[in-house]
Amino acid sequence: MKKIINLGLIGLGTVGTGVVKILRDNLSLIEKKAGTKVRIKKICDKDFKSSRKIKVDKKLLTGDIAEILNDPEIDIVIELIGGEEPARRIILEAMKRGKHIVTANKSLLSKHWDDIFSSAKQNKVAVYFEASVAGGVPVIQSLNEGLAANRIKSILGILNGTTNYILTKMTKEGINFKDALKEAQKKGFAEANPELDIEGIDAAQKIAILSSIAFGAWINPGEIFCEGITAITKEDIKYAREEFGYILKLLATVKNTDREIEVRVHPTLVPVEHLLASVEDEFNAIYISGDAVGETMFYGKGAGQMTAASAVVSDIIYLSRNVYNGIAGKVPYVTYQRDKKVRIKQIDKIETKYYIRFSTIDRPGVLSKISGILGENNVSIASCYQKERAVSREVPIIMITHKAKEGDLQKALRQINQLSVVRAKSKFIRILD
Amino acid sequence: MKKIINLGLIGLGTVGTGVVKILRDNLSLIEKKAGTKVRIKKICDKDFKSSRKIKVDKKLLTGDIAEILNDPEIDIVIELIGGEEPARRIILEAMKRGKHIVTANKSLLSKHWDDIFSSAKQNKVAVYFEASVAGGVPVIQSLNEGLAANRIKSILGILNGTTNYILTKMTKEGINFKDALKEAQKKGFAEANPELDIEGIDAAQKIAILSSIAFGAWINPGEIFCEGITAITKEDIKYAREEFGYILKLLATVKNTDREIEVRVHPTLVPVEHLLASVEDEFNAIYISGDAVGETMFYGKGAGQMTAASAVVSDIIYLSRNVYNGIAGKVPYVTYQRDKKVRIKQIDKIETKYYIRFSTIDRPGVLSKISGILGENNVSIASCYQKERAVSREVPIIMITHKAKEGDLQKALRQINQLSVVRAKSKFIRILD
Repeated sequence: MKKIINLGLIGLGTVGTGVVKILRDNLSLIEKKAGTKVRIKKICDKDFKSSRKIKVDKKLLTGDIAEILNDPEIDIVIELIGGEEPARRIILEAMKRGKHIVTANKSLLSKHWDDIFSSAKQNKVAVYFEASVAGGVPVIQSLNEGLAANRIKSILGILNGTTNYILTKMTKEGINFKDALKEAQKKGFAEANPELDIEGIDAAQKIAILSSIAFGAWINPGEIFCEGITAITKEDIKYAREEFGYILKLLATVKNTDREIEVRVHPTLVPVEHLLASVEDEFNAIYISGDAVGETMFYGKGAGQMTAASAVVSDIIYLSRNVYNGIAGKVPYVTYQRDKKVRIKQIDKIETKYYIRFSTIDRPGVLSKISGILGENNVSIASCYQKERAVSREVPIIMITHKAKEGDLQKALRQINQLSVVRAKSKFIRILD
Repeated sequence: MKKIINLGLIGLGTVGTGVVKILRDNLSLIEKKAGTKVRIKKICDKDFKSSRKIKVDKKLLTGDIAEILNDPEIDIVIELIGGEEPARRIILEAMKRGKHIVTANKSLLSKHWDDIFSSAKQNKVAVYFEASVAGGVPVIQSLNEGLAANRIKSILGILNGTTNYILTKMTKEGINFKDALKEAQKKGFAEANPELDIEGIDAAQKIAILSSIAFGAWINPGEIFCEGITAITKEDIKYAREEFGYILKLLATVKNTDREIEVRVHPTLVPVEHLLASVEDEFNAIYISGDAVGETMFYGKGAGQMTAASAVVSDIIYLSRNVYNGIAGKVPYVTYQRDKKVRIKQIDKIETKYYIRFSTIDRPGVLSKISGILGENNVSIASCYQKERAVSREVPIIMITHKAKEGDLQKALRQINQLSVVRAKSKFIRILD
């Protein structure tokens, strides 16, 4: 039985520094919970010159990754450099040498799930990754363990703090997307290049991870339908809320339907009385339905130095305990079958309710023409709102549909967009049902 | 290494039946996650005649508890009879014989924490109890593991579904307490004798459990200040919401202050924009602040057959895995020191904001008299609402205070209640801050 668990930390950036801080400040609590002593033996980074606002014993520091990989005393490698390479190579190499992994790397995990968990199984090591989704909120562990008795029916997630912050600003202050993005960048909630966030790619990677756990098979994020928030206007947010009682969120959805998994990321109108509608600013929330537990929700900050470090250190505690007891890697944390294939439902096959906004010329008969085409395509209208005539002759007509097949809706909209009275491409937003 | 993990189930009531159902319906999933075979070897109950709506092999059934306690093949005892005795004796006896425990028994655990966890430590067995708080919501595991890196700063809980249902009804339909209680009883959300729920005792037991985990020392529910919802009027709910933007909840609060733990259960006004204000009907929610993770919330149904059974079976899975790997009980699930004493802050020492309603005769100078007495007692007023003169000469004056010491407030109210212009005892409700 090992007397001490040795950690090798790769990446002393924001989260890495947070991990060092927690291990310093809460060490006695951590060791009590782990049931063993825990220490950082080595920290590897390319550059230690940038001030990290933390004092670290210089003997721990190295610029050479081999000093961690080749050290037989190191039990757990904590990968916090992010991105695909060299993180992938380092993790695979570490596992080959019998080291367990803690990582926060959502992009790597979601894209290389098969490789990483096959290798973990083969090398009898464990991979923990609580920080990869929703920061310090223990949703990975809850899916893996606390809700283990359940067949998961669906997961709805507000998984990206940047976009939730932007949409909250747009909703509450009535400002447009560009101004809200600038505000988010100024406050540090959005990066200079915000593409991964605002195009929904980050959320798609996270729902891929949650889905892969929930359904025991890899869901590749590349196969997930993904639509960002860049085309959202303050007008649609306003109409949807004031006229129909919906709040706009960038929602990641996965549902276990008959034989297929329905998984998608896109702007979604959420009824104002749904708990997800109250999740504001940079917060994340994951709404999980299980066959036994019913509906549950997990909420917290999805990003930030200390919340991510909280998840990393919690993983370290439980991995250390298992290493100490000689069972880490004996039972995989993730139950997963390499050969299990899941079919993902195509977006035109999904059925949901829609908010549609038409920009038309104000002329008699327009409404009847539009609703006629919708009807012919099996899209039935639940409610309709026509703004009073403005100074311009262009008026918006807004409709909420009953549940309809997306393929049918798309077909109807193509026909409607060709009408001479229609001035701009009709816009639609899916509604949570 | 054991080839199969044997369970002894005590109590085939509502939750017990749910556990049998899940173990039947989701067995392959459960065994995959446990990494071992799991089976119910014996079920003990006093009475199997009442129809349980489930078919059970009669050979499993027994009326004699000794058949479970004396069976050396049984690894895990699942106690679902509830109440203090004979549950306490059975659990202690089972632990002496080296059996691990899964229980949903909040009353037993909260009142006998010391005895149960000391005995578990002594006998090197594990006690799992996810179902004891918030049904299937994995908040116990999250406090023990997923948030393990954190020092817990505070927990705010809507922990009782019955009272939350009643208060939601009173708020949304403007009905009084008695009618809302009747409605809850009709719908099966309240028992014929609802005392444990409406007096806050159930919530006190649950916050005692959460606090005991969070602070690593037993918090006895008998020491928790506890005030129920029976004196709440629909008028106060209405004023608080419409005039001041607060929603009334029965909140269990625990805070780690300087040297003392502040722990209490009472009706609390929650700002409408706080996520807890949106937790409606029979749902529970636990809002946890940790030093690293920041603010998190866990939400779901706190009661019901399948949600409780979900928690019990999740516990069974992880205990079975640990038994199979020979480590169950080696590391206690709960980190707890018998000798650690925590001081609980007396209620008159707490500081918070208050909603106060005075019933006075409508006469000049009343407001100045009242606010004068409050001021002399260091209670300062943040806002005030005086209803326009009604037909009767009795008018309510409502005040929201700044933070004040409860002892000071109580003293001021005693003086105010003696004024000749005051017609009824002044009422106050604490505000979340």
